[in-house]
Amino acid sequence: MKKWKTAISTRKNNELFIRGVRHLDLVERSDFIASLFLLWRGTLPSANEKTMFEAILVSAIEHGIDVPSSVASRIAVSTGNQMNSALASGILALGRRHGGAIEGAALLLQSGEAPDEIVRRIISSKEKIPGFGHRLYKEKDPRAEALFLRAQKIGFFGVFAKKAHDIKTALERASAKILPINIDGAMAALLLELGFDPRILWGIFIFARTAGLIAHAQEELDETGVYRHLDEEDIEYTGK
Amino acid sequence: MKKWKTAISTRKNNELFIRGVRHLDLVERSDFIASLFLLWRGTLPSANEKTMFEAILVSAIEHGIDVPSSVASRIAVSTGNQMNSALASGILALGRRHGGAIEGAALLLQSGEAPDEIVRRIISSKEKIPGFGHRLYKEKDPRAEALFLRAQKIGFFGVFAKKAHDIKTALERASAKILPINIDGAMAALLLELGFDPRILWGIFIFARTAGLIAHAQEELDETGVYRHLDEEDIEYTGK
Amino acid sequence: MKKWKTAISTRKNNELFIRGVRHLDLVERSDFIASLFLLWRGTLPSANEKTMFEAILVSAIEHGIDVPSSVASRIAVSTGNQMNSALASGILALGRRHGGAIEGAALLLQSGEAPDEIVRRIISSKEKIPGFGHRLYKEKDPRAEALFLRAQKIGFFGVFAKKAHDIKTALERASAKILPINIDGAMAALLLELGFDPRILWGIFIFARTAGLIAHAQEELDETGVYRHLDEEDIEYTGK
Amino acid sequence: MKKWKTAISTRKNNELFIRGVRHLDLVERSDFIASLFLLWRGTLPSANEKTMFEAILVSAIEHGIDVPSSVASRIAVSTGNQMNSALASGILALGRRHGGAIEGAALLLQSGEAPDEIVRRIISSKEKIPGFGHRLYKEKDPRAEALFLRAQKIGFFGVFAKKAHDIKTALERASAKILPINIDGAMAALLLELGFDPRILWGIFIFARTAGLIAHAQEELDETGVYRHLDEEDIEYTGK
Repeated sequence: MKKWKTAISTRKNNELFIRGVRHLDLVERSDFIASLFLLWRGTLPSANEKTMFEAILVSAIEHGIDVPSSVASRIAVSTGNQMNSALASGILALGRRHGGAIEGAALLLQSGEAPDEIVRRIISSKEKIPGFGHRLYKEKDPRAEALFLRAQKIGFFGVFAKKAHDIKTALERASAKILPINIDGAMAALLLELGFDPRILWGIFIFARTAGLIAHAQEELDETGVYRHLDEEDIEYTGK
Repeated sequence: MKKWKTAISTRKNNELFIRGVRHLDLVERSDFIASLFLLWRGTLPSANEKTMFEAILVSAIEHGIDVPSSVASRIAVSTGNQMNSALASGILALGRRHGGAIEGAALLLQSGEAPDEIVRRIISSKEKIPGFGHRLYKEKDPRAEALFLRAQKIGFFGVFAKKAHDIKTALERASAKILPINIDGAMAALLLELGFDPRILWGIFIFARTAGLIAHAQEELDETGVYRHLDEEDIEYTGK
Repeated sequence: MKKWKTAISTRKNNELFIRGVRHLDLVERSDFIASLFLLWRGTLPSANEKTMFEAILVSAIEHGIDVPSSVASRIAVSTGNQMNSALASGILALGRRHGGAIEGAALLLQSGEAPDEIVRRIISSKEKIPGFGHRLYKEKDPRAEALFLRAQKIGFFGVFAKKAHDIKTALERASAKILPINIDGAMAALLLELGFDPRILWGIFIFARTAGLIAHAQEELDETGVYRHLDEEDIEYTGK
Repeated sequence: MKKWKTAISTRKNNELFIRGVRHLDLVERSDFIASLFLLWRGTLPSANEKTMFEAILVSAIEHGIDVPSSVASRIAVSTGNQMNSALASGILALGRRHGGAIEGAALLLQSGEAPDEIVRRIISSKEKIPGFGHRLYKEKDPRAEALFLRAQKIGFFGVFAKKAHDIKTALERASAKILPINIDGAMAALLLELGFDPRILWGIFIFARTAGLIAHAQEELDETGVYRHLDEEDIEYTGK
């Protein structure tokens, strides 16, 4: 029994095959989206699957300079680090409160638990419900709305998308407060509709998000070369 | 004067604009490749630019389980870490000897230095020449060949691609040994042809490469949950 | 209200004070252990606290070349990365299955749950019990034994150390199998005896462990400069 | 020939030996400083070596909440990440402009190049001279002064410390401006006096610095759980 096993790729006669497809054929085909789908989902996508998948990727491509992941990447560059360290640092600033709720949301959507039960359980635990609510988008997350609209048009508004909306309705009933499905929740629902394993979902989010981090890291390389630090007036010393 | 400046994206009325284009319009358009091009290059691509760019991205999508970045990601998962830590760890195992020669190659191709001078200088310094040579592909790197072929067909075999080939010829003349243009060198040449800033090139490589790391991290999550370690018979103790 | 609050350190007249003590006085004093204790625990240690704390730190200083964290640091160096990336990568290969059980162990020891209940609950959940059992040390972890012996001699074998041993006894009773208190469990118990907050414990472990990673990263810098990769004969392709 | 070679540690009969010394003997001895010296330098230290080494470690233990490494660690925690990711992120925000000049400084001090030549070369290149100058300490870095004073008292003010001061004098002559030896420069000079390899110096700095990061990460865990982000009024959009 060998120590390392993989079904992702292998080499024959010094040629790489990815999920059974020759890598050079993929290069020839020049379809990055289909190649990603093959790599992560195991099959090439249909035209509609590709469109849905592509809309999902675009929805997470950039979040602004103000979010923690952008800031972390830029701080690493400002102290003299290279692109790979900057991206690693930015990715380490993604987490359950910033882009990392997608897997938790997927597990909720996949579970047998009914929307009302979920809402009751989470309200009593005082935890946050992964995939719902947003710092800026109080009433609705326009990115999530756009993705669900697309899903409806091309046939991906299935059981997971419906359950997400049922949880939202149950939340409103229980708390008399709107808590919109956020981009993490929408991505979770629609990536499940596309047949992805819940455990790869956070990876897909990070992938799309890294696009923005790359732009921020490069832009910071053009800055003055002074490291980023806090201003004294923003700090309160609370010790003795 | 504000502390943080950016030309990448901004929000107006709680809507994000990326390089001047409304993010929701990009989601509606569902063109991930064009969105990446816009984000990193500042403009939307022409049809041929898009094809060339997409071929480049596909060429770096996966390298096999055996390379350092795949191994590092899987080790992090095997000790109980999550997707973001695994990807950060894999990215930290990319470097000038594994995927990180692209920026050095671009600087060579952009410099005014003639191919013969470059080869003379590097041979005398005993350093490696970034973008040339490969552990497995001794005579030619098929991925590089495929990209240059595509470039010729659709009009991107310009000064940088030519200079890469001139360096290769000069190397053969000087050392009587074939040292093929590798994938880093080909990507550098063709991303320069597409007008990208040399400083974002490594980011683009890392982006494409992360696709494979995500697949490896997920696959490792299905493993037995025993951490990866070296076998005793592979270790030699050389101390006292 | 200021955005950032801290009780750790502040500057007065351009001099740094750590937990109220002038940094230059600490440098003058040249007592690194006392300085760490001050920084992490908030007060300077007594002579016995210092001895106990120091024994704990020494116990985690190095684990061999074969463990995941050493391997990850060396892989990062082998691809051409610097010391900081290598250490970051090594630290990302610590986790609940390798050095990261210390916080979980501390929470068990601090909880009101009785040893028999803990054992019953964990056996029924089929999870691992954090702080107990080891890949190599099947009957007893000699590092843990040495720490507890020292604790007995100088007065730190209190409620947490006792509870750890009670859980071990309950485990043996329930499973008719020896599962020794491992180094994570012993560190957790004794750092709690010293009054540390459970949430800093993993940090203290990582700190001591980083010492070994630094030695491994430096040693790898002397290697041939060929990147680390898997051997073909260790890989099984399980795909199509 | 084995794939992995190490002179750092080995196991005999399931016991770990570090640089030839039994790990359990080190735990028994409870001397963390001597253990670090052994691990990184290969021998146990004399009493004076230990004092000098310990003063150096204390000098880098904490830098305040405002520096990039503290901020990066806290950002990672604020998004929901654990201690190991937070420390990795903080370490990735150390670099040649923040704690990473130590190796460059050591290479200058070890080189045969005379102080006047060094200053002439660096002034003409418009680069920064590693180990000299500081954002806050314009005239003298008190930590560096304290270390050199200690070195003079106990016999470690040798050729490297002298060369650092000669460079400082040459700098003042050439630029009519005071550029003090900073903490990186002082650590570099004195760790060379202690016989350390230049390539481990940055690791030693990072080690000491991690102490502070651990305190900041823990403190952030007590914060409100809202992720850290930039304020809108600190951002200027410079794009179209």
